[in-house]
Amino acid sequence: MKQSKLFTKTQREAPKDEVSLNAQLLIRAGYIEKEMSGVYSFLPLGLRVFKKIQDIIREEINSTGSQEMFMTSLQNPELWKKTNRWDDEVVDVWFKTELKNGGELGLAATHEEPLVNIMKKHISSYKDLPVSAYQLQTKFRNETRAKSGLMRLREFIMKDQYSFHTDQNDLDNYYEIVKDAYIRIYEHLGIGEHTFVTYASGGMFSKYSHEFQTLTQAGEDLIYICDKCKVAINKEIIEDLKHKCPVCDASGLREDKAVEVGNIFKLGTKFSQALDLVFTDQEGNNHPVIMGCYGIGPQRLMGTICEIYNDEKGIIWPEAVAPFKVHLISLGKNDEAEKIYQELQKNNIEVLYDDREEITAGEKFADADLIGVPFRVIISGKSLEKGGVEVKKRSEKESKVMAVSELLGFLTK
Amino acid sequence: MKQSKLFTKTQREAPKDEVSLNAQLLIRAGYIEKEMSGVYSFLPLGLRVFKKIQDIIREEINSTGSQEMFMTSLQNPELWKKTNRWDDEVVDVWFKTELKNGGELGLAATHEEPLVNIMKKHISSYKDLPVSAYQLQTKFRNETRAKSGLMRLREFIMKDQYSFHTDQNDLDNYYEIVKDAYIRIYEHLGIGEHTFVTYASGGMFSKYSHEFQTLTQAGEDLIYICDKCKVAINKEIIEDLKHKCPVCDASGLREDKAVEVGNIFKLGTKFSQALDLVFTDQEGNNHPVIMGCYGIGPQRLMGTICEIYNDEKGIIWPEAVAPFKVHLISLGKNDEAEKIYQELQKNNIEVLYDDREEITAGEKFADADLIGVPFRVIISGKSLEKGGVEVKKRSEKESKVMAVSELLGFLTK
Repeated sequence: MKQSKLFTKTQREAPKDEVSLNAQLLIRAGYIEKEMSGVYSFLPLGLRVFKKIQDIIREEINSTGSQEMFMTSLQNPELWKKTNRWDDEVVDVWFKTELKNGGELGLAATHEEPLVNIMKKHISSYKDLPVSAYQLQTKFRNETRAKSGLMRLREFIMKDQYSFHTDQNDLDNYYEIVKDAYIRIYEHLGIGEHTFVTYASGGMFSKYSHEFQTLTQAGEDLIYICDKCKVAINKEIIEDLKHKCPVCDASGLREDKAVEVGNIFKLGTKFSQALDLVFTDQEGNNHPVIMGCYGIGPQRLMGTICEIYNDEKGIIWPEAVAPFKVHLISLGKNDEAEKIYQELQKNNIEVLYDDREEITAGEKFADADLIGVPFRVIISGKSLEKGGVEVKKRSEKESKVMAVSELLGFLTK
Repeated sequence: MKQSKLFTKTQREAPKDEVSLNAQLLIRAGYIEKEMSGVYSFLPLGLRVFKKIQDIIREEINSTGSQEMFMTSLQNPELWKKTNRWDDEVVDVWFKTELKNGGELGLAATHEEPLVNIMKKHISSYKDLPVSAYQLQTKFRNETRAKSGLMRLREFIMKDQYSFHTDQNDLDNYYEIVKDAYIRIYEHLGIGEHTFVTYASGGMFSKYSHEFQTLTQAGEDLIYICDKCKVAINKEIIEDLKHKCPVCDASGLREDKAVEVGNIFKLGTKFSQALDLVFTDQEGNNHPVIMGCYGIGPQRLMGTICEIYNDEKGIIWPEAVAPFKVHLISLGKNDEAEKIYQELQKNNIEVLYDDREEITAGEKFADADLIGVPFRVIISGKSLEKGGVEVKKRSEKESKVMAVSELLGFLTK
């Protein structure tokens, strides 16, 4: 895309009321716009990143055999009363509203109840199981402390996934499949080495649940890392575990701050019993369906990536989620740059082309550093004298000059 | 996808409280689930269709140079008070809710105000114009009469698009570009010949606005068609036009029922004046930005397509939006069918493969007719005796037998 056409502009200063680094960077660079505390719109650049994160999640979750669907935000209270989750005293993040025709409604903060209700139509026999379904859909949460930019929101998209099984063993197997898919997601996003499978409280149906915690000082959680096993323990259960690794029993765990970027949880029969989701086994006996649930938040991932990958000049996107692969900058050489732009596009390389006139070289470089596209390609009188274009990775200091004919090979190698 | 894995099942009967044909068919076939009146979830088959409709819209709107973004549902009242659209007496479809920290919020029924507010940061000079931006985002509307299935919803996604211009002429030109894109969208969706550009009331800034009306007895609008000009007039202005075509001045227009599947509207400076969105011209003088807006609802399109394309057995999807191109049905020949399934997938042909055992041929055919995939391919002992597979279009009565080796060529021709 041509930068002269992109309607957003960068800002030198972050809004004064914005305390979180991820939001400061994303607002300054023109990725997002703050509507209110904990509520951000995506501008065109931001939506590109956000879609890439969602697509990476979708690809891996599809590979677990889960089927994508899309439930609604408006929720009927009757269903939630059956599980005792309608009362604000029990679930304290509801946004509630009213129908003009009369009657209270809720805005979904999660979707166990409506999905179990749907599954009652489709699951009746052991032959209908296992099933896994997921969506990428908005959640509304009436948070009182939404001050961490994209890390804690009142309105956000969640990949929430639910699985349905005849027995604990089948759930346990699928749970491991999803856990592996999650690990691949973080690796693909570029935060794999910063992210730890973390033991957390398991609830009634399982000893532990698992969180995925990514190390960052912007995180709100404290975790205890076993470097040998590459796992961590959430502070909430570290006393119960007597400060020892649940895998190797070692002590001397390393404490660090982290943000929860995903969690997986064995629900057992909590929701199926409350909402009467049962299956008939081979002998004709009825049993409640056994469930698991699996959550991941693409906005929080986007914020986390920004918190990890930045410098004093701006964001440094990992290539898999960058809005473009190449930032092509013309310094008074738009005719030559246009040819490169066409050539890269023809080869399906995503390129942001800074074709703006009346903007200084310094301003263009500052914008490029702030926006944080992985490869910067400059074409100028000077670069042409030296024999071509000047290429620099956003994550590196040194640039090199290469012939235009070499560029495509370099970028696709 | 294998039908044995698809978690949804078809239903013989529609829910008793569902009066609209499109919802009856879509629920029976397992495309959607009713959460409450005017609120439907998408099941896996339905989401496939819904995404295809959105992608067709996206492709054509991108071609107008509009930039995709994604705004929020939660809305700050302060902004809407400035345009006098917060009061329930003025805008009667608001869902409103409250922050736990205190303060009322609205759920967006449209997005002019937040987008104009965003644009104030990015538009200051004539050099920043024109700009067009759009999103595919949820709208909430507190409708009192939501009884037409997907045709009138309380929660739905809209492609809403807004353009910003220095002068009326520039708006007029872009407006025609979007109008042409809309016509291509309806053609691509398979309802082009049923859809009429329809003159409607223009408001303060223009003589007419334009709706796109698709003929169906399920529609709530009355339009008057000039068959010569292939345009129509909405009942709301037919008296003003003295029952004559505004293009050729002919009378004797044909009345019919239709549903509004899109509208485009010249807003002028209504919102830019109220919210102080101005630009500086070449002489340094300030002017309010001139705006247009362009809406289209993918759920309503999905409902409309179902209302038009069905028979007593079920839905008959146009190929562009069908959940799959091919419904492959095995009657006891899963080994042979599996090979065809693999072959079609390898060639990027989307196929739903009915591999279910313990289901009669009659049940499989009834499900296929209800689900409405364009091509049905049966492999059975009988078809193999005759030399291959039996192929039938959902929209036609006659089937033909062809060799398996011919099938791929037939489907990709």
